[in-house]
Amino acid sequence: VTAAAPAPLVGVDLGGTLVRAAVATGEASHAEPVRHPTPHAAPPDAVLDAIAAAVREATGAAAPAGVAIGIPGPLDPVAGVVHAAPNLHGWSELPVQRLLEQRLDCPVAIENDAHLAGFAEWVAGAGRGSRDMIFVTVSTGVGGGLVLDGELFSGFAGTAGELGHTIYQPDGPPCGQGHRGCLEGTASGTAIARRARELLAAGEASSLAGLPADKLDARAVADAAADGDALAISLYAEAGRALGLAIGGFVNMLSPEAVVVGGGLINAGELLFAPLRRALPEIAFAAPLARCRVVAAALGTDAGLVGAVAWAVRRFRARAGAPAPG
Amino acid sequence: VTAAAPAPLVGVDLGGTLVRAAVATGEASHAEPVRHPTPHAAPPDAVLDAIAAAVREATGAAAPAGVAIGIPGPLDPVAGVVHAAPNLHGWSELPVQRLLEQRLDCPVAIENDAHLAGFAEWVAGAGRGSRDMIFVTVSTGVGGGLVLDGELFSGFAGTAGELGHTIYQPDGPPCGQGHRGCLEGTASGTAIARRARELLAAGEASSLAGLPADKLDARAVADAAADGDALAISLYAEAGRALGLAIGGFVNMLSPEAVVVGGGLINAGELLFAPLRRALPEIAFAAPLARCRVVAAALGTDAGLVGAVAWAVRRFRARAGAPAPG
Repeated sequence: VTAAAPAPLVGVDLGGTLVRAAVATGEASHAEPVRHPTPHAAPPDAVLDAIAAAVREATGAAAPAGVAIGIPGPLDPVAGVVHAAPNLHGWSELPVQRLLEQRLDCPVAIENDAHLAGFAEWVAGAGRGSRDMIFVTVSTGVGGGLVLDGELFSGFAGTAGELGHTIYQPDGPPCGQGHRGCLEGTASGTAIARRARELLAAGEASSLAGLPADKLDARAVADAAADGDALAISLYAEAGRALGLAIGGFVNMLSPEAVVVGGGLINAGELLFAPLRRALPEIAFAAPLARCRVVAAALGTDAGLVGAVAWAVRRFRARAGAPAPG
Repeated sequence: VTAAAPAPLVGVDLGGTLVRAAVATGEASHAEPVRHPTPHAAPPDAVLDAIAAAVREATGAAAPAGVAIGIPGPLDPVAGVVHAAPNLHGWSELPVQRLLEQRLDCPVAIENDAHLAGFAEWVAGAGRGSRDMIFVTVSTGVGGGLVLDGELFSGFAGTAGELGHTIYQPDGPPCGQGHRGCLEGTASGTAIARRARELLAAGEASSLAGLPADKLDARAVADAAADGDALAISLYAEAGRALGLAIGGFVNMLSPEAVVVGGGLINAGELLFAPLRRALPEIAFAAPLARCRVVAAALGTDAGLVGAVAWAVRRFRARAGAPAPG
């Protein structure tokens, strides 16, 4: 980076384990990312310092034109305040935007990490070219993001897109927030593992029966299902059907051009997607369903960082002192 | 109306019983409406002729600058095609916009009637001043409309806002479209009446037991509940709770500034709203719920016509040859 080069735009993906920071090289592409461990048990200042250090390392000390950060928790992107980040210590109503702008001396935008993963799929992944897109991410929990009329949609409080916390069955299993009956309580990796434990405890036959309790997760169930285990297959069928019924309702509600399903559970492929697709027409009207593609995400675990980079470009390209990269 | 007056903007509310047409006198106000019976059993041409006649009568033969029409069924407002209108004979993939533009010789906009009722509440009713608003209408069925970022949101196929056809309980009672488990299957007037019949047939004690079958509707249940009938109260409590859990999920999904609940069932007042409000925090996150008001609609049965008028003004005011009225 020389003095004549445009100021770098930086995307940061803040996870519970790693901080990743990368300089944009295009609308949704980036240089090799810097990775730092997240000091998740330390006070917020330590995490903010780690983010600032990762950004400085990524830019090679050039002053950035703008930084966008994906954060795992509900937040207000306009006020720049994180309401909560369950995997980080002491992050409660934290004014992250201001605290990082002080450290980095450049404009900072914060966004929910699932929103940015969805934005990445819209700019450069499976939702590319669509006008209205719903992103559903299914891993430990169920999250999401919305692109409506070609814009990332965050709603009035900035927290929109929490698709896992819509009603699926009243008095059903609790979600990760302790609410009973959310979609997440039935269709997440946590839910699959819990249901497997319940059924094994009830004496159901399965190749999973021999597994130590701490190995019995959604991935182990997916492996068993791929090997033909009937119980494991039925658990993915149940989660897929729940996702399909919920997504069918979202199609009725928003009539998107695309629904992109991402997160670790999609590695199960058709074990999840076949029952999901079968359930869609049980609830979705023919007209909006016919004009909507329901597809697997394309960017995998890169989506968070790609989304942060793309959001930095979208928000701050005018400040970078150069035409849009890429 | 003289030749010097600006050309009138006309809103039309097409119902299964009545066609109402009125000339705009302001952004969301109108002159005394013309009412014609809807020839609902006749072929589409007869209904379209009745609409055109009502418009002409409303304008006193002045050529309108534009006409907006609310139609009870799923439709594509961009293509101008009605997919279906269950209460009208032969309305299937009908190019209503073109057929009416031929009759009226002016631009016509078609929209779903619940969308327009929601738009009316946003312009002039309980959602006034909000940026993002969800309208839920609860009567025979459950419908809705969305205003997002200050615009009526219709989605890619034009059919967005079908909030009654989101999943509420898998394998639950069927909705009016025969889908099992929709919100409408639990929280509509039809659902309340069906549940009352089931419980009475099972021998539950209630003042409703003496009622002839054809009088046992949601209004009769509301009357009994107002008189203290425990079964009737519990039926409204169940519907209110279902609406609250569903709306709580919508708040998580879209983080609106307002949720406006309209339709005939809101005449039950606190019998419906108290359990509805109690259910909200069971599923909605604190941050978006704190910034969202959940309130009863203000415009009653006028909302459809007011919305059509307001939509005519919004869409066609520039063609009216005068500054925006009002």
